Amino acid sequence: MSTTHATEIQDVPSYCQQLADQACQANQTLSQVTGQQRTEALLSVANQIEQATDALKQANALDLANGQEAGLSSAMLDRLKLDDKRIEAMADSVRQIAHQPDPLGEIIEGSVRPNGLQLQKVRVPLGVVLIIFESRPNVTSDAAALCIKSGNAVILRGGKEALHSNAAIATCVREGLTQAGLSQDIVQLVGTTDRFAVGVLLKLEGQIDLAIPRGGKSLIKAVVEQAHIPVIKHYTGNCHVYVDAQCDAQMAVDICVNAKTHRTGVCNATETILFHKDTVESGLLKQVCDALAVKGVEIRGDEATCSVFPSAVKATEADWDEEYLDLIVAIRVVDDLDQATAHINKHGSRHTDAIVTSQVAAANRFVQQVDTANAFINCSTRFSDGGEYGLGAEIGISTDKLHARGPMGAADLTTYKWIVTGNGHIRG
Amino acid sequence: MSTTHATEIQDVPSYCQQLADQACQANQTLSQVTGQQRTEALLSVANQIEQATDALKQANALDLANGQEAGLSSAMLDRLKLDDKRIEAMADSVRQIAHQPDPLGEIIEGSVRPNGLQLQKVRVPLGVVLIIFESRPNVTSDAAALCIKSGNAVILRGGKEALHSNAAIATCVREGLTQAGLSQDIVQLVGTTDRFAVGVLLKLEGQIDLAIPRGGKSLIKAVVEQAHIPVIKHYTGNCHVYVDAQCDAQMAVDICVNAKTHRTGVCNATETILFHKDTVESGLLKQVCDALAVKGVEIRGDEATCSVFPSAVKATEADWDEEYLDLIVAIRVVDDLDQATAHINKHGSRHTDAIVTSQVAAANRFVQQVDTANAFINCSTRFSDGGEYGLGAEIGISTDKLHARGPMGAADLTTYKWIVTGNGHIRG
Repeated sequence: MSTTHATEIQDVPSYCQQLADQACQANQTLSQVTGQQRTEALLSVANQIEQATDALKQANALDLANGQEAGLSSAMLDRLKLDDKRIEAMADSVRQIAHQPDPLGEIIEGSVRPNGLQLQKVRVPLGVVLIIFESRPNVTSDAAALCIKSGNAVILRGGKEALHSNAAIATCVREGLTQAGLSQDIVQLVGTTDRFAVGVLLKLEGQIDLAIPRGGKSLIKAVVEQAHIPVIKHYTGNCHVYVDAQCDAQMAVDICVNAKTHRTGVCNATETILFHKDTVESGLLKQVCDALAVKGVEIRGDEATCSVFPSAVKATEADWDEEYLDLIVAIRVVDDLDQATAHINKHGSRHTDAIVTSQVAAANRFVQQVDTANAFINCSTRFSDGGEYGLGAEIGISTDKLHARGPMGAADLTTYKWIVTGNGHIRG
Repeated sequence: MSTTHATEIQDVPSYCQQLADQACQANQTLSQVTGQQRTEALLSVANQIEQATDALKQANALDLANGQEAGLSSAMLDRLKLDDKRIEAMADSVRQIAHQPDPLGEIIEGSVRPNGLQLQKVRVPLGVVLIIFESRPNVTSDAAALCIKSGNAVILRGGKEALHSNAAIATCVREGLTQAGLSQDIVQLVGTTDRFAVGVLLKLEGQIDLAIPRGGKSLIKAVVEQAHIPVIKHYTGNCHVYVDAQCDAQMAVDICVNAKTHRTGVCNATETILFHKDTVESGLLKQVCDALAVKGVEIRGDEATCSVFPSAVKATEADWDEEYLDLIVAIRVVDDLDQATAHINKHGSRHTDAIVTSQVAAANRFVQQVDTANAFINCSTRFSDGGEYGLGAEIGISTDKLHARGPMGAADLTTYKWIVTGNGHIRG
């Protein structure tokens, strides 16, 4: 399957149906697989990846050559590239996931009802997960490993630029499953780059339990529009820092600079900084602008900002909604904390939003009012990350509110089942 | 608003947009409202309902007259009817919800990361909820109360047959909120029966956080197809009882009869009974069929069933998928437990499925293998209910796997927020 190429698949709907049927069958077998077996399977997958280093590099070389021909940017080519170090990191990541605590079987709640019925709410796998991604090839092994860990079958659909690399990695994963005595169809890679396949899979309600798209805005929008199955979205990261009237000035400078410039191309980088109006007079607004300018950041400011920092570009209304993913920041001066949270709730993407303040009351009010997955007090938005939260590898950062919010680990690929035990109880 | 009638609303999209804007504004005010205030508001709502008994009966009389004219069945008219006792029950239900523990503010998880960052995962409201229902008028007060309890703003859209009753109840709820010093727009009722309004509301992504349709299959299907916002579905209840080879025969008879006949028109009534093949010889299959027949149940059996119980109708493949909601049951004999769970996973609706067995290993295997929200051991499927689970009033029974599964209470109308506190932490 993982060696099947686009041109060989004539009947895309039947092919997709077959993938889903196989995933459902594999999923049935998973209910009898223990946590120890899942751990061992992951260790076996990690070994397969290491042993296949040469094959992985060969497959990757094909993708790189095609990418160069297709005129991919050097940044894109770098993200695509697999070398010894990156392959080792992929295997290590799978081992780390293997050694995480088992998310399954947890009794989330339990009680004995007055009539003697025993009630347990127990964590179980979701079933069959579809992951659509366009990122680096290591997503293939990470996503597969998180699904195996959480007892789910998974259908992976990678980007066409990494077609051969993804297929080679999927082969390692499936071989690892087989060696551990599990069904290789627990992990399947869609063997066609035909976009129609995604549309077909997204309509298989009752067979596929969840779709997680990882990638740019347009990919996610397309998935949401086509899906008949539930989707958890990782939309844009229009993150904010709000600098309150009373705060440690140096802390504000450090956090703003780190949040904007530590890495600009990531979703938890800050895109807009809001300043309390008192920071205009205190000089803190100018101090932060200066520090950002030194780092080469282009400042798009409102009127108050431009008057303090004249080399700023005048911001337009569109700037407040922009995810620059670049050395550009929007800056606005607000009257108070309430105006700051209103701005964030209007323009933000519910990803990560921080306050810098020395006042407990302000911190509490900010956290209460801001409608965001990750509300930060006195730290850089860059900490919004599954690894930093101790979740291990992450399957994404949900900007949705339902099911999972913020960084998602293996436990977020589970649901629960109510188990009720009686002794012949009937309802009177 | 609640007195606005269909004919008065010309521009449905603008009207819906206005409802959503008002809900979002009310939702902003809710972040500063304490649990005590929400409890007091609910007690005030309960008082309003009691005091408005005459007005409620008058409004209800209009609906009943219209219903009679429209030829509603006597069962439908009975469900629609409000009398002193039912109005008192509505007020009592609101009081019970008021006295439930506050679902908000719970720290679901918490840790201090190695770098000193303090991490808290805290339960918060979803935001704005849309509830679309076609059931009895008491859903208006129950749903409103659960949303107030969980700190959400809600837009209610009831069925046209209860238009005046719902409007009168919504007026009580809004008056109760006002008297408690809260925004009355926390609860709004859609003042038009134009179906187009639902379609408009379901597309307000970013303003409405969740839609919960309560009603028949066709309503839910229509909602899912139109929605751009997340939907939690309460689909059909095609519930099963599986009678294992080894079990207490009398227990099997009692549970099958109760699960099928205690109330037939409800979602947790059993529709198909599966028997282990050994029960044919032991006579248990016949014993259960006899007991069901005494209760007037029509049996649609497979070949093995018909040979033991000749007055059974021969079942067709379609019977396995049917939610009869009537004194009809489908019966099939299976080779073993695995065939029983395979049948349930293929034909069931993931609602509630029970096993009757004396064997621990069989009970465990059944619970593991069956893909259902509520897996029952030795008790009637009729216990699948928020009240029986101790959740208080329920907003529905989710047959979905994401976010909430099975009976949903106030806590299922919440999400969480990650709150991260640092001391100037930046990422290196």
